Amino acid sequence: MEQSFVAWVAQRSRRLPQVQLGIGDDAALLSASSRDWVVTTDSLCEGTHFLIDQAGPRRVGRKAASVNLSDLAAMAADPIALFLSLCIPRGGDPKFATEVVEGVCERAEEFGVALAGGDTNVWDGPWVIHVTAIGTAPEAGCWRRSGAKVGDRLLVTGTLGGSLLGKHLDFTPRLAVAKALRDEWKIDACMDLSDGLGIDLTRLCAASGVGAVVNLDRLPISDAAVEMALQSGRQPIDHALSDGEDFELLLAVPEAVAARLPATVEGVPLTEIGTFVARTGLWTKRGGTLHQLPATGYVHK
Amino acid sequence: MEQSFVAWVAQRSRRLPQVQLGIGDDAALLSASSRDWVVTTDSLCEGTHFLIDQAGPRRVGRKAASVNLSDLAAMAADPIALFLSLCIPRGGDPKFATEVVEGVCERAEEFGVALAGGDTNVWDGPWVIHVTAIGTAPEAGCWRRSGAKVGDRLLVTGTLGGSLLGKHLDFTPRLAVAKALRDEWKIDACMDLSDGLGIDLTRLCAASGVGAVVNLDRLPISDAAVEMALQSGRQPIDHALSDGEDFELLLAVPEAVAARLPATVEGVPLTEIGTFVARTGLWTKRGGTLHQLPATGYVHK
Repeated sequence: MEQSFVAWVAQRSRRLPQVQLGIGDDAALLSASSRDWVVTTDSLCEGTHFLIDQAGPRRVGRKAASVNLSDLAAMAADPIALFLSLCIPRGGDPKFATEVVEGVCERAEEFGVALAGGDTNVWDGPWVIHVTAIGTAPEAGCWRRSGAKVGDRLLVTGTLGGSLLGKHLDFTPRLAVAKALRDEWKIDACMDLSDGLGIDLTRLCAASGVGAVVNLDRLPISDAAVEMALQSGRQPIDHALSDGEDFELLLAVPEAVAARLPATVEGVPLTEIGTFVARTGLWTKRGGTLHQLPATGYVHK
Repeated sequence: MEQSFVAWVAQRSRRLPQVQLGIGDDAALLSASSRDWVVTTDSLCEGTHFLIDQAGPRRVGRKAASVNLSDLAAMAADPIALFLSLCIPRGGDPKFATEVVEGVCERAEEFGVALAGGDTNVWDGPWVIHVTAIGTAPEAGCWRRSGAKVGDRLLVTGTLGGSLLGKHLDFTPRLAVAKALRDEWKIDACMDLSDGLGIDLTRLCAASGVGAVVNLDRLPISDAAVEMALQSGRQPIDHALSDGEDFELLLAVPEAVAARLPATVEGVPLTEIGTFVARTGLWTKRGGTLHQLPATGYVHK
């Protein structure tokens, strides 16, 4: 199977000028750039991140590309190329592998990225869809998790919670928002929300050596979180804090910038939900006093 | 598990100046270079490429790094960084994951490369060890599979066959040989031998639009191929042609260069085993006439 499949993928993937040599040699060759290089890598495993029969192989391929593009967005990077490595269950539906590739290619085309290489293995295990994404850093430097400062405002793109109802497969990596923000405004730190606001904000705070006070009344709760709450008996805000796989951007923004930022960027709402403080940990204000907020969130076990 | 394991890997991996930002952010940041970038990606799957109990996790980690470094060697690239993505079977020996990382780090240190990022997933499947390797192209350009010319000599490094007896886990990626050759000599094409001389030479010929006449009497047959033949009842030369996972370099060299090349480079034997010809396909001369050579080799099913 491998050779004819690789030949098909090579023909299917889009040629872009930054790729001098794509699929088919021992390695791919990407044109030199005066920018630094940003590299991220993420595997999706059947049973942990998706059920291929339930989600459909094309959506799973899209997700595999998207989670990596979301990491590049969190760094304010410009995406260049994707590399796809597939572990394909022996004896499965042969159309699934081509559908996964179609999903990756659809996303690649949408974001002007090349599928420039990869690897396929047929084996006696479940699906693993592994993507490495490569981009270039903006001239002014990448956003990092470690740059949040005391007094910075905490902002989040889009809405949070209930991702399992569909968004975890169909989300839009926030590359356009990141590019628009980085080109016009000073952003001190950023990360993407993969494990839930509680856990991820704890990580951003730890990397920056600060704490955060979250205004829970301001959380942009998604319709899906409300729907989930009807099923789960929990509060919508719990879902917004802890469901994970939102793939929105969490931003630390200087106060003066936050005051002037528009309410939407590239059609995506931008909501101020808190402030970074010197006291480490996550906090929320209730009745005028600070209460610790548990760093709960969804952890892929 | 994930956070403490990632913290350990971050601390374990070597810092190198070309890595501005390694493990711990949304992506890694590699310093810009005036050279083009060479990227390769390869997964090792338990049951297909290794049995972790039999091989030992450290050797498997070494192999995962080595197969990718071998691809960079085949392009004459200088390695910069590795990215490691692990799918770890739930309920397995917890020491295995750290041993796999140790194996990757050992190889990384040996070749002056940084482990700059990755991803870990605990799941209900077998081991998958996925590595992406990034390097820079030499100023004169990368070696490609497509450059072999009619009249070029066919050379191979090291010895061939019997890799399953140990070399498939413990081989040395031919980075030093590649660097020494590229810096002094004109090489027209190269690839690394992963599926066996028969299959891989067929691929190199197809990419270059040429054929090859192989002098079977000149094949550098390994001691392991001889040992395998005693067990299999086949000829040692069959093993040298078709066992696969030799991870030696197959080179197309202009005739005038071939005549002046030393017999060993960086301590590794270099053997001329044939000539590229206009007639496509693989051939061998017997009794003064050309006979077709089957493109057999080991294919990971």
